[in-house]
Amino acid sequence: MRSIRPQSLCTKFWRISSQPQRCQFHKRAFSISVGRRTSTVDMTEEDLAKVEIDRQRLWGELHKTCEWGVGERWGENPTDVGMHRLALSDDDKKARDWFVAAVQNLGCEVKIDAMGSIFAIRPGKKAGPPTYAGSHLDTQPTGGRYDGILGVHAGIEMLRTLNDGNVETEYPVGVINWTNEEGARFPISMVASGVWAGAVSLEKGHNLKEVNGPATQKSELERIKYLGTTEASHEVNPIGAHFELHIEQGPILEASGGKIGAVEGVQAYRWYTVTVKGRDCHTGTTDFRNRSDSMLTAAKLILHSHNKASEMGCLASTGILNLKPGSTNTVPGSVQFSLDMRSKENSKLLELEEVLRAEFPKIAAGDVVDCMNMAGTKGRGCEVEWRLDTDSPATKFHEVCVKCVQESAEAMLGTASTSLVRKMTSGAGHDSVYTSGRAPTSMIFVPCRDGVSHHPAEYCSPEDCGNGAQVLLGAVLRYDRLRAERAN
Amino acid sequence: MRSIRPQSLCTKFWRISSQPQRCQFHKRAFSISVGRRTSTVDMTEEDLAKVEIDRQRLWGELHKTCEWGVGERWGENPTDVGMHRLALSDDDKKARDWFVAAVQNLGCEVKIDAMGSIFAIRPGKKAGPPTYAGSHLDTQPTGGRYDGILGVHAGIEMLRTLNDGNVETEYPVGVINWTNEEGARFPISMVASGVWAGAVSLEKGHNLKEVNGPATQKSELERIKYLGTTEASHEVNPIGAHFELHIEQGPILEASGGKIGAVEGVQAYRWYTVTVKGRDCHTGTTDFRNRSDSMLTAAKLILHSHNKASEMGCLASTGILNLKPGSTNTVPGSVQFSLDMRSKENSKLLELEEVLRAEFPKIAAGDVVDCMNMAGTKGRGCEVEWRLDTDSPATKFHEVCVKCVQESAEAMLGTASTSLVRKMTSGAGHDSVYTSGRAPTSMIFVPCRDGVSHHPAEYCSPEDCGNGAQVLLGAVLRYDRLRAERAN
Ligand SMILES: [Zn+2]
Ligand SMILES: [Zn+2]
Repeated sequence: MRSIRPQSLCTKFWRISSQPQRCQFHKRAFSISVGRRTSTVDMTEEDLAKVEIDRQRLWGELHKTCEWGVGERWGENPTDVGMHRLALSDDDKKARDWFVAAVQNLGCEVKIDAMGSIFAIRPGKKAGPPTYAGSHLDTQPTGGRYDGILGVHAGIEMLRTLNDGNVETEYPVGVINWTNEEGARFPISMVASGVWAGAVSLEKGHNLKEVNGPATQKSELERIKYLGTTEASHEVNPIGAHFELHIEQGPILEASGGKIGAVEGVQAYRWYTVTVKGRDCHTGTTDFRNRSDSMLTAAKLILHSHNKASEMGCLASTGILNLKPGSTNTVPGSVQFSLDMRSKENSKLLELEEVLRAEFPKIAAGDVVDCMNMAGTKGRGCEVEWRLDTDSPATKFHEVCVKCVQESAEAMLGTASTSLVRKMTSGAGHDSVYTSGRAPTSMIFVPCRDGVSHHPAEYCSPEDCGNGAQVLLGAVLRYDRLRAERAN
Repeated sequence: MRSIRPQSLCTKFWRISSQPQRCQFHKRAFSISVGRRTSTVDMTEEDLAKVEIDRQRLWGELHKTCEWGVGERWGENPTDVGMHRLALSDDDKKARDWFVAAVQNLGCEVKIDAMGSIFAIRPGKKAGPPTYAGSHLDTQPTGGRYDGILGVHAGIEMLRTLNDGNVETEYPVGVINWTNEEGARFPISMVASGVWAGAVSLEKGHNLKEVNGPATQKSELERIKYLGTTEASHEVNPIGAHFELHIEQGPILEASGGKIGAVEGVQAYRWYTVTVKGRDCHTGTTDFRNRSDSMLTAAKLILHSHNKASEMGCLASTGILNLKPGSTNTVPGSVQFSLDMRSKENSKLLELEEVLRAEFPKIAAGDVVDCMNMAGTKGRGCEVEWRLDTDSPATKFHEVCVKCVQESAEAMLGTASTSLVRKMTSGAGHDSVYTSGRAPTSMIFVPCRDGVSHHPAEYCSPEDCGNGAQVLLGAVLRYDRLRAERAN
């Protein structure tokens, strides 16, 4: 269990900071002088760089609110505790109440929609749909302290920093806490942003039942007093742009030494169930030539799907496998396995599927395909069946938003930043998938330790939390400036 | 569902018979004249060939006794019905009573041992341990009409033929019905021959409990009155030689067009549980490079075990596979699979194990071994653990007995027989495994349709049943003659 050592973190930070004189973790200076309102259109790159969040405040506030929904302890430090904050639970209500009070204290208008999503709005010079930082405060049953929570806290830290620095935006900016992103208690993920975007009906959202009990989302919204009066609708309650800071939930940044992911979109994925039909036989009395070994065939198909996906820059994974009859001395006559295939590009994914659909039967018949069936004994062959279970096309984020994230990251990380900022594709879904269909959207990824998420030991360092929030702030300000410039 | 057509079977038989003038299925002529006792030592090859079983009588008697323990119907013919005759059940008692009455009618002495095995002895010219035809009358819960049953009936048909033909053997010959070969109701296979051979204690055999109930083998033996007074012992109740006719329970004879298997022994087998330890991760957020994919690794190991076993003339099979956690979008962190490896030779099996134990960790680490890891993306690697669960060394049958079977088969099948008689190794265990440690032993295999056994639709044609019984008779007579020649 590692302890948090601000000193060493700071040292680490200096190495990549453009301002090596000051420890940003311990102390910050507001560069925008008090008393004079500064507007984003008047701000130079240098000015923007001086609007710096309070990393210690962010870290402190985030962990303070984790007292609502305390999960499993996994380490020795005070913050080495997981989260159990299911959507619309009493703990979620406490976190929501804190959120509303915090943003009202910062002078924000608060809207709550019919799905309980909370919109905090800080007015700009002009009216118009706000540029939001959005994410979620609910967690998995055995979740961590950063997934979703970091994004919402970074939004509030953004508002605090703007207030502290007297920064006025051209258009309103705000923070969203989306209801039930996790889909853990009420089993549809991103359901509230889905209703907002018109992809899920309000009726379906309201009637969604909890996994173990009689409550619906609507009955729980009523119970905790978060059934809002604003229509859950992108038309009635529009978003100007949506930026979401999130832990990567994967190991790619950490493994490659990257600090910020500028997320260009979300992978397409398709889930299949593949059935291999062979014939049961005795392992001792049946030679290889006379077998229809569905397990051996499934092994070849799983390996081939990996090889082919590798070749084509896609992903392929098998997470479930069941065989029948399941006895040490019986060659299985039937195997079913899941195949999860992903790609940045819809077309690439369909191409991979087409190739595998053509090659699987050949491999199952014992024909040589690439390195499959080059060795071993050809048996009597098996049949292969495919079933498509889920089809989720790729999401492309907005180029301008991605550019704002990238420029903000490069400004923070300085000249050494080329290898530290990485364009990425999200492998998992987020509320940003739904907002991106209705408003310019991008996401910011920060590393999480070992890529672990949805687990109590999920961990994002103070440095990386701060980096993410700083980039979020910079991206929102840059986008606001662009909006104003375009309007002129 | 195929019907039995004696006509076409006869035609088929003629093609391989040395005596094409006569339909052996419908009619037989006793070649040894009544009234004169003929002794095996005086018999030429021609004489031996004339001692022919009554194929129709064998077929009729076998199916008549299948009224005790009627199982599942699978076809339209009267005999298209499976068996459910668990050891020491009321149905098994009826079959035993029939057996005892039948052999007593044929003039046999009957011994029943402490495990309920029944020994029927037809006296020879000299005293001495009998040359037996042995097998079992019990079946699997959803078994067929041929496994075990054919071997016992062929033994009784042998006695009838010897009586009918006035053939006198030099030494006693007989038939054994071994108790609970299947190990289905009382879960140790071949337990009675095991006790006889001294490999299983009588106490263990007696106290063995039924799978679903309170009865023990001893209490059931008492209940059905088959707790015999003869000691279950190879010393007290010795066997001169043991020949067992059995369906192959595999597809090799049928697939290769063979008619008789001269069984040289039983394969060695070792059962392992192989555990692959990787790390759970999200299928969407984790690139191939950063995975420790235990399922993909298991697929490689299963395929490699097949390739290597193929190369070395062994068998390797995976009949059980369990993975954790088991979710479409989680790369499994842990997989366990069974590995059943077999070879005719103990040394060969150990060599295969040694090779795989050395190569599995390399493959799991991502190194190239043969064609493994030639394609695809190298990940972070997995750990591999082995556990040996079962070790059953090879059994070598007696060369002289194997030769008797082979000569008997060649005599029956005639000059075209080279490709019709096949030296084989049994993949499954039989009572002959235990007898072979205490007496010269061999087995005779006949084809069963599609290699199906332990299933209601298990099927052995009248032609193949008859062939097997004829070869059994010939082998016993040849062995008897050899014994006498050696004694002189
Ligand atoms: Zn999240
Ligand atoms: Zn058997």
